Amino acid sequence: MKLISGGICAAKGFKASGIHCGIRKNRTKKDLALIVSDVPASAAAVYTTNLVKGAPLLLNMRNLSDGKAQAVICNSGNANTCNANGIQIAKEMCSLVSNATGISASDVVVASTGVIGQPLDITPIANGMAELTAGLSYDGSNDAATAIMTTDTVSKEVAVEFEVSGKVCRIGGIAKGSGMIHPNMATMLVFITTDCAIAPHMLQKALSGDIKNTFNMVSVDGDTSTNDMVTVLANGMAGNEVITEENKDYTVFMKALNTITVNLCRMIAGDGEGATKLLECVVSGANDEETAKICAKSVICSSLLKAAMFGADANWGRVLCAIGYSGAAVDVSKIDVSFKSCKGEIPVCKNGAGVPFSEEKAKEILLEKEICIIISVGSGEFSATAWGCDLTYDYVKINGDYRT
Amino acid sequence: MKLISGGICAAKGFKASGIHCGIRKNRTKKDLALIVSDVPASAAAVYTTNLVKGAPLLLNMRNLSDGKAQAVICNSGNANTCNANGIQIAKEMCSLVSNATGISASDVVVASTGVIGQPLDITPIANGMAELTAGLSYDGSNDAATAIMTTDTVSKEVAVEFEVSGKVCRIGGIAKGSGMIHPNMATMLVFITTDCAIAPHMLQKALSGDIKNTFNMVSVDGDTSTNDMVTVLANGMAGNEVITEENKDYTVFMKALNTITVNLCRMIAGDGEGATKLLECVVSGANDEETAKICAKSVICSSLLKAAMFGADANWGRVLCAIGYSGAAVDVSKIDVSFKSCKGEIPVCKNGAGVPFSEEKAKEILLEKEICIIISVGSGEFSATAWGCDLTYDYVKINGDYRT
Repeated sequence: MKLISGGICAAKGFKASGIHCGIRKNRTKKDLALIVSDVPASAAAVYTTNLVKGAPLLLNMRNLSDGKAQAVICNSGNANTCNANGIQIAKEMCSLVSNATGISASDVVVASTGVIGQPLDITPIANGMAELTAGLSYDGSNDAATAIMTTDTVSKEVAVEFEVSGKVCRIGGIAKGSGMIHPNMATMLVFITTDCAIAPHMLQKALSGDIKNTFNMVSVDGDTSTNDMVTVLANGMAGNEVITEENKDYTVFMKALNTITVNLCRMIAGDGEGATKLLECVVSGANDEETAKICAKSVICSSLLKAAMFGADANWGRVLCAIGYSGAAVDVSKIDVSFKSCKGEIPVCKNGAGVPFSEEKAKEILLEKEICIIISVGSGEFSATAWGCDLTYDYVKINGDYRT
Repeated sequence: MKLISGGICAAKGFKASGIHCGIRKNRTKKDLALIVSDVPASAAAVYTTNLVKGAPLLLNMRNLSDGKAQAVICNSGNANTCNANGIQIAKEMCSLVSNATGISASDVVVASTGVIGQPLDITPIANGMAELTAGLSYDGSNDAATAIMTTDTVSKEVAVEFEVSGKVCRIGGIAKGSGMIHPNMATMLVFITTDCAIAPHMLQKALSGDIKNTFNMVSVDGDTSTNDMVTVLANGMAGNEVITEENKDYTVFMKALNTITVNLCRMIAGDGEGATKLLECVVSGANDEETAKICAKSVICSSLLKAAMFGADANWGRVLCAIGYSGAAVDVSKIDVSFKSCKGEIPVCKNGAGVPFSEEKAKEILLEKEICIIISVGSGEFSATAWGCDLTYDYVKINGDYRT
C-alpha cells in the first residue's frame, strides 16, 4: 500500500469540481462541490447520532437504502438544518444534479455544512450548476475539497493505492471539519471514493466497522454536529473480483480504508478550530477495548488539558483527573503517563503519582505541533487511540461571532 | 427567610480565620483557612465521583462516618492529590488543628485545592497554625472565604436567617470554584454552617437531596474535579428542637439550605474561569425530570454555545444541536428557545425552526452579564435549571500555564 496524490479523483472514473456560487458572501471562497462517478457505484454512509439531523441526511437515508449512488453534491456556508423547507431544498439540489448530468436524483448524495437555522436559498446553487458540471475533471479533487471547507484552514485530501487479487485499486477521500467536532457513530463530512469492486453490504460493513476506531475517536470541542456524515462510493472500475464476503480481499480493503480514515482524522483534529497542535492520546493496558476508548476520549476532550497543551504545560494531573471522571473502571494507582513528540518522550507520572522530571525537557517536547499523550492504565491487553487538538484563544474568537 | 451578612459566621457559635502561610508564593494571597464551631456539630458531606480523589477526601470519608465534626481546615495552592504521602499530610493537618484547639483530630474536616500531583509541604501550615488560630473570630467569614480561593476572582459568601418552630436559625456558606467545575454527585469546595439543630442523618439527607438540583447542575468547563466536596456543620446553637424526621421543620431547613446552595451555584458559575457572563438555562415541558436536566446541562456545557454567548451572538442553532446530542429523548420539532436578560426576552426558535427576530434586540439582550436561555421541549410538566458561563480568551489564558 502506498500513499498517492489525487484525493477523491485518485480512483478510476471519478471526476470532481468546486466553485463559488454565491451562498457565501466572500467571493474568494468556494461553496459548492460535485463528485461524479462515470458508472453507478456501491454506496455506504454513516450519519450523526444527533437527534437534530440536517435535512440532507434525512434525504440520504432514503436515497441510499438501495446501496447505490453515482454523485455527491455538497454546499458550504449553510447547513440546511432546522429549516421548515429543508427536505424540499435538499431534494431540489439532487434534482439539479440529475438535470445537469442525467444521473437519477435518487442516486445523488446531498450534503450541506455551515450555519444552522437559516433557510438555504436554492437560487445560487441553481445558477451555479452549469459552471459546476462544466468544471468536472479527473483532476478536480482539490477544488471539491476546498469548496466543502467552513472554518477549516487547510483542505483535507488523502489517497492510497493497494492491490486486491492482483488488481491495482485506489481509494481516496476528502474531509471538512474543524469545529462542532465530537463524532458519535458518524462524523463530520467525509467523502471517500474507490474503484475497488465491493458489494454495497460489505462496503457498509467496512465503513461502519472502521469509524468506531477512527472518526468516533476524534474530538475538537465536544459538540456533535447535526450534519456529520461519511460516505463511500465504490465504482468497481479497478476490475477486481467483487468483494462479497469477509475474505482476504476484504481485509486488504479494510486496511486501505483505515489508512484513509486515520489520515483524515489526524488532519481534522490538527485543523481543529483555532488549534495550534494535534493531540494524539494512546491508552494501553486496559482490560477491555471500551475502557481504553473511554479513557482516551476523556483525556482528549478535557478543556483543561487542551488549554495546558496550548501553553506547553506538562500538567499531567489533568490527565489523571480526566481519566478519573471518565466513567471507566480503572485502578488509579496503576496509571502511568508520558508526553511525547519528535523531540522525545518524558515520563511524568508512574503508578498514579508524579515522578521528578525536567520541566525544560517537557516544555521542549510540548512546544511541538504534534503531541502524543501516552497512558498505561494497567496490565490488560487492550488499547485505543483518540485524536484532538489544543484549546486556544482563536477557538473562542472563531466561535464568538460565527454567524457574521 | 431573609438574606443576612456574615457568611459562615452568621450562624451562632462559628468562628473563622484565613491567613497567608506560604503555600502560595504570592504573599498577598491568603492560602489557609480554619472554621471552628464552639460546640461539636452534626456534619454531612458529599464528595466528587471522580475515581481520582484528593487525599483529604479519603480521610474525611473516614472521619465523618460518625456524622460529627467541629472544625474545618482548608488550604489553597495545592490539591494534595496524586501524591504518595497525601493521606499522611492530610492527617497531619488534622493533628495540627487538634493540637491548637483541643478538638479531636477525627472531628476535623480537611480540604485542599490547587495544583494536582505536587507534594504538599506541611511546614508552612505548621508554622502558620499559631497565627491561624489566633485569628479565629466570629467575624472571620470573609478571611476564610478569601483563603480558599484559587483562580476565583471574587470571594463567595452567602447567609440567610429562617425560623424553625419559633426559633430563629441561621445558615451560611462559602465556596471556591472557578475552573475544573462540572460536579457529578458532589462539587467544588463548599463549606456551610448552621446553628439549626438537626440530626446527622437528616443533615446528610438534606444535603444529598439538595445538590442534585444545585451543584450538580453547574458546569464551567466539563472537568469534574478530584477534590470536589460540600460539607455542612450544624451545631444546634439556635436551640430549636432537633430535626430528626421529614417534618415541617425539615422542609423549612431544606428551603434555607437550597437558598444558600443556589446562591453559591450562581456565584461559582458567574465567576467561572475567564467568564464574563453567568448563563442560566431553564428547560421546561419535559416528560420527566431527568430529561429536563440532561437538556439543560448539555446546553450549558456546549463550548460552541458558550463561545457564542461570549460574542453576544444569538446562535440558537447551537442550543438545538446541544439538545440533539445530549442523549435526552425529546421531539426536536417541539422545541422553543428564547434568550432573556434584564434587557428583555426574545424568542428565536419555535417548534424546532427559526423565527424572524431583531438581531439588534438580541445583541442588546446578550450583551448583559446574566443571560437566561429559556427552552421548552414539549408539553410535559418537568423542568430543570443549570448554571454555567461563557467561554472566553481568558479561560484559555488562565489554563494555558496554570502551574507557573
